[in-house]
Amino acid sequence: MSLPAPNPVPALRLPTVAPLADSALEARLQHLIDRKTKPTGALGRIERLALQIGLILRSERPVLDAPQMLVFAADHGIAAQGVSAYPQEVTWQMVENMLAGGAAINVFSRQMGLALTLVDAGVAHDFAPRAGLVTRKIAHGTRDASVEPAMTTDECIRALEAGRELVRALPGNAVLFGEMGIANTSSAALLLAKFAGVPLSAAVGRGTGLDDAGLARKREVLERALARHAGATEPLDVLAALGGFEIAMMAGAMLQAASERRVVVVDGFITGAAQLAARALAPQVHDYCVFSHLGAEHGHAALIGALKAEPLLAMGLRLGEGSGAALAWPLVDAAARMLAEMASFESAGVADRDA
Amino acid sequence: MSLPAPNPVPALRLPTVAPLADSALEARLQHLIDRKTKPTGALGRIERLALQIGLILRSERPVLDAPQMLVFAADHGIAAQGVSAYPQEVTWQMVENMLAGGAAINVFSRQMGLALTLVDAGVAHDFAPRAGLVTRKIAHGTRDASVEPAMTTDECIRALEAGRELVRALPGNAVLFGEMGIANTSSAALLLAKFAGVPLSAAVGRGTGLDDAGLARKREVLERALARHAGATEPLDVLAALGGFEIAMMAGAMLQAASERRVVVVDGFITGAAQLAARALAPQVHDYCVFSHLGAEHGHAALIGALKAEPLLAMGLRLGEGSGAALAWPLVDAAARMLAEMASFESAGVADRDA
Repeated sequence: MSLPAPNPVPALRLPTVAPLADSALEARLQHLIDRKTKPTGALGRIERLALQIGLILRSERPVLDAPQMLVFAADHGIAAQGVSAYPQEVTWQMVENMLAGGAAINVFSRQMGLALTLVDAGVAHDFAPRAGLVTRKIAHGTRDASVEPAMTTDECIRALEAGRELVRALPGNAVLFGEMGIANTSSAALLLAKFAGVPLSAAVGRGTGLDDAGLARKREVLERALARHAGATEPLDVLAALGGFEIAMMAGAMLQAASERRVVVVDGFITGAAQLAARALAPQVHDYCVFSHLGAEHGHAALIGALKAEPLLAMGLRLGEGSGAALAWPLVDAAARMLAEMASFESAGVADRDA
Repeated sequence: MSLPAPNPVPALRLPTVAPLADSALEARLQHLIDRKTKPTGALGRIERLALQIGLILRSERPVLDAPQMLVFAADHGIAAQGVSAYPQEVTWQMVENMLAGGAAINVFSRQMGLALTLVDAGVAHDFAPRAGLVTRKIAHGTRDASVEPAMTTDECIRALEAGRELVRALPGNAVLFGEMGIANTSSAALLLAKFAGVPLSAAVGRGTGLDDAGLARKREVLERALARHAGATEPLDVLAALGGFEIAMMAGAMLQAASERRVVVVDGFITGAAQLAARALAPQVHDYCVFSHLGAEHGHAALIGALKAEPLLAMGLRLGEGSGAALAWPLVDAAARMLAEMASFESAGVADRDA
């Protein structure tokens, strides 16, 4: 009996992300892990990962199936302020490189058996339709966040929704995230500053390789952007003001994946910022995430701290594209296989220390 | 015209390990890595690994082929001093577990596509002949190094030679190393102390899980062993006095693998001690080694420092078996594939920052 809403902007609909905690299952999983033929705790981080995967998939013999690598690409209006070492057209050129199979993420996805999907979330370029490219373009790049909100609320909601819909259609029970977008370390640094209260001096880094003068300029531009949107406090408003289409779409996709109890593998600085945005919208999403690596971008350590994450790798990566997530994937898979396939002291007839 | 040697002990024959340095090839490889479609250095540790693999395989498009996981098992006389949390029979029981496919190294080798070979280097148990088990038993365990030399010189040379012969017969261009042997962290700690001058307080850890009293006892036993063999200074004498059959056989296998320009992947604390012994015999072997991880055994950090190694992972592992090497293998393979398969800025038509 309600009247049509006067505002044509759709309301944000968020999926329900269930709390992961299940003390009975956790106790059963920990017992299984402790009875595997190894000294207690001897597989270190792999054991904690196995427990998390068992809880997400609600299985004592979890099998990671059909892992999906989603790479979201978009452009950023703030690039006009000279905050990147590379020109904006590198975004679409790198998408073309990925479509041709020549980028790092292609090499690593092939190696690791990851199904790779490229998503045009908002690149400032029109791609010819192609196998392997999914077009969910919200606009030809965001607006310049140092001047005005990067997105309208409507655009931000559409990006979140597009991410959700993409994941709904995916097979498998694990989703890995990557991105491409010139100037998106700027957007990620702004989100880190705003969502986690990290000072810009700790959040802003050289991105693809700014020199000292470029870094100083980037800091100054981001200080201005942050000041301009000081009034934005609701998560959706912050994401719209400072985010990017690829970041908002990743956030929506992560929320959907967690709501479907898929394992979410987070890549580096920009993907981590998307996770921070997703968490602002639904805190439980954290428990479904595996943080693949601590990278070399200056703000990444502060982000990892803000996320309370325990990254699997620390290899000085700062490429994005999902490269760190892909490189860490075998460790995630190994944790599941340890739980599913390793013998116990009892089944193997091996004497335990207490025997 | 020489007379037969009066001493029936065979002389140690070491293979020639060529220096890895090749400045012309290194410059070509670095240029190729720098022109890949990524910011310079953005793949961090993966890039340095790619350079090393290119140099070892002398290829600008290296392909790692038929990687071999060798797990050497043996027993240690010093176990009689109560230096391990587990009884000695766990060595053979774990070998049986591995033959049945239920150990961590089985799970990870299957996952990573590693051909797994188990080598009985000197287990105090007679195994029925089996597919997947190679018998190179030098004796039924070493002698107690806290009382007498663990091996005779002849036994040590035979172990080194057996390792060399094993590798000679292997296909592929990469060998990963693992081990199993109750009390072998004692032997490794002694080798670390003797070869690298690391104090036992920094070299000795809890192994499979000693409590405080057990750890104190282990330190005391190892102090005695070290004092007893203070006169041993030549590498072969040190290895014979303080090593183990699996450690000596690994050292021989590493030397052979390096001499054949195979990539050598070192696992954890015990495998690292074998690398230290191999290096004492032929320093160049270092350049052919990839150090898979920094583990949780107390002495591992000191060992990594002594080896001047840059481990790929740091996941709190302390299992051995080659588990860390197997978990790191996809990173090694990824480095080779990055070099062989990634597009360059030129081939992909992507604008560089200087373009």
